[in-house]
Amino acid sequence: MKGGTTICAPSTAPGSGAIAIVRLSGHEAIAIADKVFRAAGKTGKLKQQSPNSVILGTIGTREKVLDEVLVTVFREPHSYTGEDVVEISCHGSPFILSGLIHLLIKHGAIMAKPGEFTQRAFLNGKMDLSQAEAVADIIAAGSEASHRLAMDQMRGGFSEALEKLRTKLLKFTSLIELELDFAEEDVEFADRTQLIKLIEEVQSKIASLTDSFQTGNAIKNGIPVAIVGETNVGKSTLLNTLLRDDKAIVSEIHGTTRDAIEDTMTLSGVVFRFIDTAGIRHTEDAIETLGIERTYKSIRKARIILFMADANDSAEYINKRLKEIRKKITTQKLIVLLNKADKAEKPVFDKLKKNIELHPDELFYFISARKKTNIGVLEEKLVELSGISNLGNEGVIITNLRHYEALTKAGEAISRAADGLKNKLPSDLLSQDIRECMHYLGEITGQITNDEILGYIFKHFCIGK
Amino acid sequence: MKGGTTICAPSTAPGSGAIAIVRLSGHEAIAIADKVFRAAGKTGKLKQQSPNSVILGTIGTREKVLDEVLVTVFREPHSYTGEDVVEISCHGSPFILSGLIHLLIKHGAIMAKPGEFTQRAFLNGKMDLSQAEAVADIIAAGSEASHRLAMDQMRGGFSEALEKLRTKLLKFTSLIELELDFAEEDVEFADRTQLIKLIEEVQSKIASLTDSFQTGNAIKNGIPVAIVGETNVGKSTLLNTLLRDDKAIVSEIHGTTRDAIEDTMTLSGVVFRFIDTAGIRHTEDAIETLGIERTYKSIRKARIILFMADANDSAEYINKRLKEIRKKITTQKLIVLLNKADKAEKPVFDKLKKNIELHPDELFYFISARKKTNIGVLEEKLVELSGISNLGNEGVIITNLRHYEALTKAGEAISRAADGLKNKLPSDLLSQDIRECMHYLGEITGQITNDEILGYIFKHFCIGK
Repeated sequence: MKGGTTICAPSTAPGSGAIAIVRLSGHEAIAIADKVFRAAGKTGKLKQQSPNSVILGTIGTREKVLDEVLVTVFREPHSYTGEDVVEISCHGSPFILSGLIHLLIKHGAIMAKPGEFTQRAFLNGKMDLSQAEAVADIIAAGSEASHRLAMDQMRGGFSEALEKLRTKLLKFTSLIELELDFAEEDVEFADRTQLIKLIEEVQSKIASLTDSFQTGNAIKNGIPVAIVGETNVGKSTLLNTLLRDDKAIVSEIHGTTRDAIEDTMTLSGVVFRFIDTAGIRHTEDAIETLGIERTYKSIRKARIILFMADANDSAEYINKRLKEIRKKITTQKLIVLLNKADKAEKPVFDKLKKNIELHPDELFYFISARKKTNIGVLEEKLVELSGISNLGNEGVIITNLRHYEALTKAGEAISRAADGLKNKLPSDLLSQDIRECMHYLGEITGQITNDEILGYIFKHFCIGK
Repeated sequence: MKGGTTICAPSTAPGSGAIAIVRLSGHEAIAIADKVFRAAGKTGKLKQQSPNSVILGTIGTREKVLDEVLVTVFREPHSYTGEDVVEISCHGSPFILSGLIHLLIKHGAIMAKPGEFTQRAFLNGKMDLSQAEAVADIIAAGSEASHRLAMDQMRGGFSEALEKLRTKLLKFTSLIELELDFAEEDVEFADRTQLIKLIEEVQSKIASLTDSFQTGNAIKNGIPVAIVGETNVGKSTLLNTLLRDDKAIVSEIHGTTRDAIEDTMTLSGVVFRFIDTAGIRHTEDAIETLGIERTYKSIRKARIILFMADANDSAEYINKRLKEIRKKITTQKLIVLLNKADKAEKPVFDKLKKNIELHPDELFYFISARKKTNIGVLEEKLVELSGISNLGNEGVIITNLRHYEALTKAGEAISRAADGLKNKLPSDLLSQDIRECMHYLGEITGQITNDEILGYIFKHFCIGK
């Protein structure tokens, strides 16, 4: 970006604090900072300072000192953006921040657009596109699991996995394209058996990545859980019991989407979102229409259904309700909870256990939401069902819709190549499908890109990043 | 503070941002940071790094990287607190911040109390008490004028003025106390004429400082202005006209006290607070009781009264209203504004000008709030009346109630000394009064202090400062 603009912005959260930081990046960053900064003692100009060292001084005009500050100079390419960067650490007053930004703009800097520092880092080759996207995710991450995914992505785990696939495909497609030059001689440089094996490997890898999107999305936004049951069965007592220690943590997480959600909680670093379900009200065995509709809606949105009944209900009644609910279940996990177990007798338990008809993948617990009986077991099961604890260190998970869409297109292209290979399609058509697959993989990391994609990605950043 | 505790806290404003900073201060700061930080490349441990340099690396446990960070080490006494200080610059995510603080606490740091970093700076002699207090004022300052006062105070202007007074008093009181050793010989080492001159100088200086408190307080909290007048005289149009460009700036100032205030605006760096006044409603010349009461209340709270009437009202009517208002005015400045001047004819102006009875210090303008006629003149007058533009660079202004109270007590003590001198009181009594005056002056800068004062001062700071 030699000769380009020099951008500036406050980089710390808005509001009052002990310290705030204003960042400058660009060819003129050091020169502009030198116009407003006066080092304490005999330290001299910033342009003479060794990089990565902190210098004390004042900032302001000749007439008025605006603040006492610490300034750090980073020289290109050894900075966040890859350009010359100056970080000014001042007192965290909105008044000082606004004054400082005005001063910098007066001396030639322009206000940075959201994400522009990270965009420059990408354009200067400091990080690839999926890493840049992860920076925004890291700042927004509100749970252990979503933070871990964003961190892995920023540190290049995902990029590495994609790069491996692309390199393999590139090798083969080069060989196939070489065949084109010798088309008349009908030679095959690319071993077809190996190519089939490779394409199957790529197909399976892409499929596992796209499959991981549902999990990734759930980690990022919380695993949706619906608690379904009659109004007085203890639904809200269970919710309060589950949320007991997490209330404080929950309230700390900003920006959680809250449409039709009762509450969120974090268990072993996984966020669970409890979807609002109306209590079903029974009037002479006829279920109120509104209650059913809202319950069905919640079931559709959930990944885990907690069906609550009373441990003193009859097995017949419970089986009937389960049949109704199963009609609406597609891939959701169903857990049957018989509440108020503290008030029931052992013979009742045994009878229910024997007579309730469960499908093989369904789970069944006696609990007492009030006395907190078996809640720990339920919580462990929820974490297990989230699928997150099973992920090893190697498991790369997709959390970003843009990546998901690019992977889906890459998957379609590689499937066409697989079909073509089976049907002995000519090399040039094969090559085209493989190139298309590589194109979409490259879009994720930004090797293939266009301004529209860049604009879309960085506008969701906060100012100063 | 060798061997004392090591404190930590986030120092940037809470919320999400590109960057957040966590500060550690104390004997163990570098050792604790080394336990959670791993430098990139072959940089090695923080304890081996040269101070004031920025080091890139990761923070976390052996198993999990929490974030990629920049760390700066400051060695005692060359730091804000005068102790070893480590600043960790991480991504501005509440989740990362909370994780980092937990890690630091796990390794032996304790959470800093509000203002504890600055309190340590004071205790380690990095700044005096009035400078420390100014740090909080700087962060809270929302206008040019209040920022300037706080900045001057932090940079030591006020401390210097007090120190000069104390040094002079100390010299004389030493001489007076020497006389006590020669009491039988009845000598006077301290020249009484010079002493009287000095005490008068100190008295006048203290008086001018205490007098400045009203101005200082007004600068800090805004100059209270009441707009008084009938409901349909154009009160709110004037307010809107005055606030025109400042709406945006006003909304940026956080934490402005807003009880019973209609709005604030900044003119030439001075904040004006418009106090809510009920429009006075006239029914057959009888003024509604509620309206009067609220108006009188506003007048009592204001420093400037803008009395608005209609340029088409009769002089007789206006004079009558003015008499009512003057009854409630003590030291407030009164400005009479005749609005809707655009609708009145010149003969009307001339007649009013001639017949309205003004006191010598009262001002009088024809304006049109709607057409913005004469508004600029009014604004200039408001700034002039605030008394702030008259202050030279040498003018030290008191903004802090604690300082005001200490100065008042110092003033009382020095007045007693002055009386004693006139009445030829013995040296030991004179000395006692002068010493008391010096004690109160010393309380301001913290040369004389106690834990209660310290606790009171620093509890009003934000965490991390």
